[in-house]
Amino acid sequence: MYKVKVYVTLRESVLDPQGKAVQQSLSSLGYNGVEDVRIGKYMELQFDDTVTDVEGTVKEVCEKLLSNPVIEDYRYEIEESAKQ
Amino acid sequence: MYKVKVYVTLRESVLDPQGKAVQQSLSSLGYNGVEDVRIGKYMELQFDDTVTDVEGTVKEVCEKLLSNPVIEDYRYEIEESAKQ
Repeated sequence: MYKVKVYVTLRESVLDPQGKAVQQSLSSLGYNGVEDVRIGKYMELQFDDTVTDVEGTVKEVCEKLLSNPVIEDYRYEIEESAKQ
Repeated sequence: MYKVKVYVTLRESVLDPQGKAVQQSLSSLGYNGVEDVRIGKYMELQFDDTVTDVEGTVKEVCEKLLSNPVIEDYRYEIEESAKQ
Protein backbone atom coordinates (compact mmCIF):
# COMPACT_ATOMS: atom_id res chain seq x y z
CA MET A 1 0.00 0.00 0.00
CA TYR A 2 1.26 3.42 -0.91
CA LYS A 3 -0.21 6.75 0.00
CA VAL A 4 0.60 9.44 -2.54
CA LYS A 5 0.08 13.12 -1.85
CA VAL A 6 -0.23 15.26 -4.96
CA TYR A 7 -0.07 19.05 -4.96
CA VAL A 8 -1.23 20.88 -8.07
CA THR A 9 -0.56 24.60 -8.30
CA LEU A 10 -1.01 27.22 -10.99
CA ARG A 11 2.23 28.29 -12.62
CA GLU A 12 3.66 31.55 -11.32
CA SER A 13 2.96 33.36 -14.58
CA VAL A 14 -0.74 32.42 -14.60
CA LEU A 15 -3.29 34.74 -12.99
CA ASP A 16 -5.27 33.22 -10.12
CA PRO A 17 -8.69 34.92 -9.93
CA GLN A 18 -9.90 32.54 -7.21
CA GLY A 19 -6.92 33.44 -5.04
CA LYS A 20 -7.48 37.12 -5.75
CA ALA A 21 -11.10 36.79 -4.63
CA VAL A 22 -10.03 35.12 -1.39
CA GLN A 23 -7.45 37.84 -0.80
CA GLN A 24 -10.08 40.55 -1.29
CA SER A 25 -12.49 38.73 1.06
CA LEU A 26 -9.77 38.56 3.70
CA SER A 27 -9.08 42.23 3.20
CA SER A 28 -12.76 43.11 3.65
CA LEU A 29 -12.81 41.00 6.85
CA GLY A 30 -10.00 43.19 8.16
CA TYR A 31 -7.00 41.00 7.34
CA ASN A 32 -5.00 43.55 5.42
CA GLY A 33 -1.67 41.87 6.02
CA VAL A 34 -2.35 39.13 3.47
CA GLU A 35 -0.62 40.28 0.32
CA ASP A 36 -1.21 37.38 -1.97
CA VAL A 37 -3.19 34.14 -2.07
CA ARG A 38 -2.76 31.33 -4.57
CA ILE A 39 -5.07 28.38 -4.60
CA GLY A 40 -4.25 24.89 -5.73
CA LYS A 41 -5.43 21.35 -5.27
CA TYR A 42 -4.29 18.73 -2.84
CA MET A 43 -5.05 15.08 -3.51
CA GLU A 44 -4.41 11.88 -1.62
CA LEU A 45 -4.29 8.69 -3.66
CA GLN A 46 -4.17 5.22 -2.16
CA PHE A 47 -2.37 2.66 -4.32
CA ASP A 48 -2.71 -1.05 -3.69
CA ASP A 49 0.10 -3.59 -3.94
CA THR A 50 -0.67 -4.60 -7.52
CA VAL A 51 1.01 -1.41 -8.77
CA THR A 52 4.67 -2.12 -9.42
CA ASP A 53 5.96 1.26 -10.63
CA VAL A 54 4.23 3.67 -8.27
CA GLU A 55 6.32 6.71 -9.18
CA GLY A 56 5.89 6.20 -12.93
CA THR A 57 2.17 5.69 -12.51
CA VAL A 58 1.82 8.83 -10.39
CA LYS A 59 3.61 10.90 -13.02
CA GLU A 60 1.39 9.55 -15.79
CA VAL A 61 -1.77 10.10 -13.79
CA CYS A 62 -0.76 13.67 -12.89
CA GLU A 63 -0.06 14.54 -16.49
CA LYS A 64 -3.08 12.84 -17.98
CA LEU A 65 -5.80 13.58 -15.48
CA LEU A 66 -4.92 15.40 -12.29
CA SER A 67 -3.25 18.50 -13.67
CA ASN A 68 -3.27 20.63 -16.78
CA PRO A 69 0.43 20.80 -17.69
CA VAL A 70 -0.09 23.93 -19.78
CA ILE A 71 -0.99 26.13 -16.81
CA GLU A 72 -0.26 23.97 -13.77
CA ASP A 73 2.70 22.43 -12.00
CA TYR A 74 2.50 19.38 -9.82
CA ARG A 75 4.62 17.74 -7.18
CA TYR A 76 4.07 14.59 -5.20
CA GLU A 77 5.19 12.66 -2.15
CA ILE A 78 5.04 8.87 -1.94
CA GLU A 79 4.66 7.24 1.46
CA GLU A 80 4.58 3.55 2.17
CA SER A 81 1.60 2.81 4.39
CA ALA A 82 0.43 -0.26 6.23
CA LYS A 83 -2.95 -1.79 5.42
CA GLN A 84 -5.54 0.07 7.44
CA MET B 1 7.35 38.23 5.07
CA TYR B 2 5.82 34.87 5.83
CA LYS B 3 4.65 32.25 3.42
CA VAL B 4 1.90 30.09 4.83
CA LYS B 5 0.84 26.82 3.25
CA VAL B 6 -2.67 25.71 4.16
CA TYR B 7 -4.04 22.25 3.46
CA VAL B 8 -7.79 21.73 3.77
CA THR B 9 -9.11 18.18 3.61
CA LEU B 10 -12.50 16.59 4.09
CA ARG B 11 -12.87 14.74 7.37
CA GLU B 12 -12.44 10.98 7.15
CA SER B 13 -16.11 10.35 7.89
CA VAL B 14 -17.33 12.62 5.10
CA LEU B 15 -17.98 11.16 1.63
CA ASP B 16 -15.92 12.66 -1.18
CA PRO B 17 -17.87 12.37 -4.45
CA GLN B 18 -15.26 14.39 -6.36
CA GLY B 19 -12.55 11.96 -5.27
CA LYS B 20 -14.78 9.03 -6.16
CA ALA B 21 -15.28 10.47 -9.65
CA VAL B 22 -11.53 10.84 -10.12
CA GLN B 23 -10.97 7.29 -8.92
CA GLN B 24 -13.54 5.97 -11.41
CA SER B 25 -11.96 8.02 -14.21
CA LEU B 26 -8.57 6.56 -13.35
CA SER B 27 -10.07 3.09 -13.34
CA SER B 28 -11.61 3.62 -16.78
CA LEU B 29 -8.22 4.83 -18.04
CA GLY B 30 -6.77 1.50 -16.91
CA TYR B 31 -5.31 2.50 -13.55
CA ASN B 32 -7.01 -0.12 -11.45
CA GLY B 33 -4.47 -0.03 -8.66
CA VAL B 34 -5.80 3.25 -7.28
CA GLU B 35 -8.08 2.24 -4.43
CA ASP B 36 -9.10 5.57 -3.08
CA VAL B 37 -8.80 9.26 -3.94
CA ARG B 38 -9.59 12.16 -1.64
CA ILE B 39 -9.46 15.72 -2.87
CA GLY B 40 -8.70 18.77 -0.83
CA LYS B 41 -7.47 22.31 -1.25
CA TYR B 42 -3.99 23.68 -1.05
CA MET B 43 -3.46 27.40 -0.51
CA GLU B 44 -0.42 29.61 -0.29
CA LEU B 45 -0.82 32.88 1.60
CA GLN B 46 1.79 35.60 1.65
CA PHE B 47 1.76 37.71 4.83
CA ASP B 48 3.54 41.03 5.04
CA ASP B 49 5.51 42.26 8.03
CA THR B 50 2.63 44.27 9.53
CA VAL B 51 1.11 41.03 10.87
CA THR B 52 2.42 40.40 14.36
CA ASP B 53 0.69 37.14 15.32
CA VAL B 54 0.95 35.14 12.12
CA GLU B 55 -0.06 31.80 13.66
CA GLY B 56 -3.12 33.24 15.39
CA THR B 57 -4.18 35.03 12.22
CA VAL B 58 -3.77 31.89 10.14
CA LYS B 59 -5.97 29.91 12.53
CA GLU B 60 -8.67 32.60 12.47
CA VAL B 61 -8.59 32.87 8.72
CA CYS B 62 -8.78 29.08 8.29
CA GLU B 63 -11.77 28.81 10.57
CA LYS B 64 -13.64 31.83 9.25
CA LEU B 65 -13.02 31.65 5.53
CA LEU B 66 -10.73 28.98 4.18
CA SER B 67 -12.33 25.86 5.60
CA ASN B 68 -15.70 24.66 6.77
CA PRO B 69 -14.92 23.27 10.23
CA VAL B 70 -18.06 21.11 10.23
CA ILE B 71 -16.85 18.84 7.46
CA GLU B 72 -13.22 19.83 6.89
CA ASP B 73 -9.92 19.70 8.72
CA TYR B 74 -7.06 22.04 8.06
CA ARG B 75 -3.35 22.11 8.76
CA TYR B 76 -0.78 24.72 7.97
CA GLU B 77 2.95 25.36 7.69
CA ILE B 78 4.48 28.77 8.28
CA GLU B 79 7.74 29.63 6.52
CA GLU B 80 9.69 32.81 6.88
CA SER B 81 10.52 34.12 3.41
CA ALA B 82 12.69 36.93 2.15
CA LYS B 83 11.16 39.76 0.17
CA GLN B 84 10.98 38.65 -3.44
